[in-house]
Amino acid sequence: MQAVVITNENLEIQERPTPEPGPHDVVVSVRAAGVNAADLLQRQGYYPAPTGWPADIPGLEMAGVVSAVGDLVSEPLLGRRVCAIVGGGGQATHCLVPAEHLIYIPDDVSWDEAGGFAEAFTTAYDALVSQGHLESGERVLISGANGGVGTAAVQIAHALGAHVTAATRTSAHHEQLRALGADATITIDEVASIERVNLVLELVGAANLSHAQHVLAPRARIIVIGVGGGSRVEIDLRFIMSLRATISGSTLRARSREEKADVAQLINESLVPLWMDGEVRVPVARSFELDAAGAAYEYFAESGKFGKVILRVDQ
Amino acid sequence: MQAVVITNENLEIQERPTPEPGPHDVVVSVRAAGVNAADLLQRQGYYPAPTGWPADIPGLEMAGVVSAVGDLVSEPLLGRRVCAIVGGGGQATHCLVPAEHLIYIPDDVSWDEAGGFAEAFTTAYDALVSQGHLESGERVLISGANGGVGTAAVQIAHALGAHVTAATRTSAHHEQLRALGADATITIDEVASIERVNLVLELVGAANLSHAQHVLAPRARIIVIGVGGGSRVEIDLRFIMSLRATISGSTLRARSREEKADVAQLINESLVPLWMDGEVRVPVARSFELDAAGAAYEYFAESGKFGKVILRVDQ
Repeated sequence: MQAVVITNENLEIQERPTPEPGPHDVVVSVRAAGVNAADLLQRQGYYPAPTGWPADIPGLEMAGVVSAVGDLVSEPLLGRRVCAIVGGGGQATHCLVPAEHLIYIPDDVSWDEAGGFAEAFTTAYDALVSQGHLESGERVLISGANGGVGTAAVQIAHALGAHVTAATRTSAHHEQLRALGADATITIDEVASIERVNLVLELVGAANLSHAQHVLAPRARIIVIGVGGGSRVEIDLRFIMSLRATISGSTLRARSREEKADVAQLINESLVPLWMDGEVRVPVARSFELDAAGAAYEYFAESGKFGKVILRVDQ
Repeated sequence: MQAVVITNENLEIQERPTPEPGPHDVVVSVRAAGVNAADLLQRQGYYPAPTGWPADIPGLEMAGVVSAVGDLVSEPLLGRRVCAIVGGGGQATHCLVPAEHLIYIPDDVSWDEAGGFAEAFTTAYDALVSQGHLESGERVLISGANGGVGTAAVQIAHALGAHVTAATRTSAHHEQLRALGADATITIDEVASIERVNLVLELVGAANLSHAQHVLAPRARIIVIGVGGGSRVEIDLRFIMSLRATISGSTLRARSREEKADVAQLINESLVPLWMDGEVRVPVARSFELDAAGAAYEYFAESGKFGKVILRVDQ
């Protein structure tokens, strides 16, 4: 197979052996793979792939067609259109995936969209619903709403019946965010002026959270899943106590194979139907061919884009 | 009735009308009342009593005998030995309490002990179990273990089968804490040396939490219920994310009458049996007569005491 390979912080296409599925795995013939911040960190030598995954092939998510199935996989998966979060190796023509981590994609979505669904939408749904217990009618602040997870979170929260305030660094994408379902759009320095919220989804980190902690309603939950804007933040514990608030953080990567299977099952049952009905979709900022991965990473690092950056894989 | 009354930041005994029970209330003939940090704050003009409670009679907890019962209270409560958390007015010869907030005390405990049970033990149980989901076999760090809530928490966590590390400012009370069930005792500056913990009960605030956040096990919970040692703390969100940790805070006072009833029921069902079996007890630092409330508050403000400060009420 062909794969993007990290060598001395450079990206190049190399020929690698096509993976064979273990008894509970499948191999996916990849059509599109999302680019994520973790890929850029991994290229710089940080954020190494977890044990058991390709150490030098980046790519945390991909979509494609199941092309080989392990001996102990009982479901008829060959030829199914799927996407998945993987520990690495997504940016290649073929990718090994535990069968129980597969997300089954609607028939009519494009490969670009499918390639950018798994990481952002799973992360956003897990944070808002599984961790944040978001309920219809609650007010939610999405801090850092213009990225992949942010645009997913705006749509999911809107589809669940929450009142969504989307906060971004500049007002550049406010119209697009309202089109995705945001009830209000603000720049992050305006956050003090909003009505108190029940949930803050913090995708930027310390820079934004230092403001957001002052607009919490009683029993508010702050869920931190991004710290690109700094990770050290001063918290006033008196606010937290008197409001009975909660701050928690999470990554999907730290979870066990079983936990990831539970998450994938939840996404298949709860979120894919919304995708099928067109209530959520994957905004794609731009897509690149696999052999232009370097250019895609550079574009990803730029500010001001809206939605996912995708690598297309020709088979 | 006689009551401790706050006038211009002084405490004096005044004659006040004995309260009449509302339809769902009882009046308790008070035998003992605990002193808490909130009383000292209230005396200084902070932390005002919630609406519907005496504005100038301090006292958040008391124990005694039910002496009058509201018309719509169906249970036969007259003469029952009880204790309760109240919104205020506990430091008096008589105190009004919603019937559903009563905690039924074992026959053989002293009034001193009963007067100091409700606030500390309810707070500790609610934090460890209802908020912290402490499970048998988990490791818990009690930060600020020598006060009323701390000594309650050490005993409750031990009784639930947790491994308890009690942290204090000095080593003065380490032997007493081990006698209450602490498996290990440390001064707070030694916290970096302990094995990682599943739960931190933070009773001191920022000063201790800035250390404690570095000894968290995966999925650890930090429950903040005291900020006497400062409330502003720098948190590293990267730790919180990678460990999937949670920081939450709470006060009992902010809750509704219904929520407080639920808490009291839980204490009656889950914690009073441990008290009855002698698995938990209330360490009393010192008790004073009601008319020596000023001296009791002064003693409370001193550091280095161990257990509760109690006001005794002669009837």
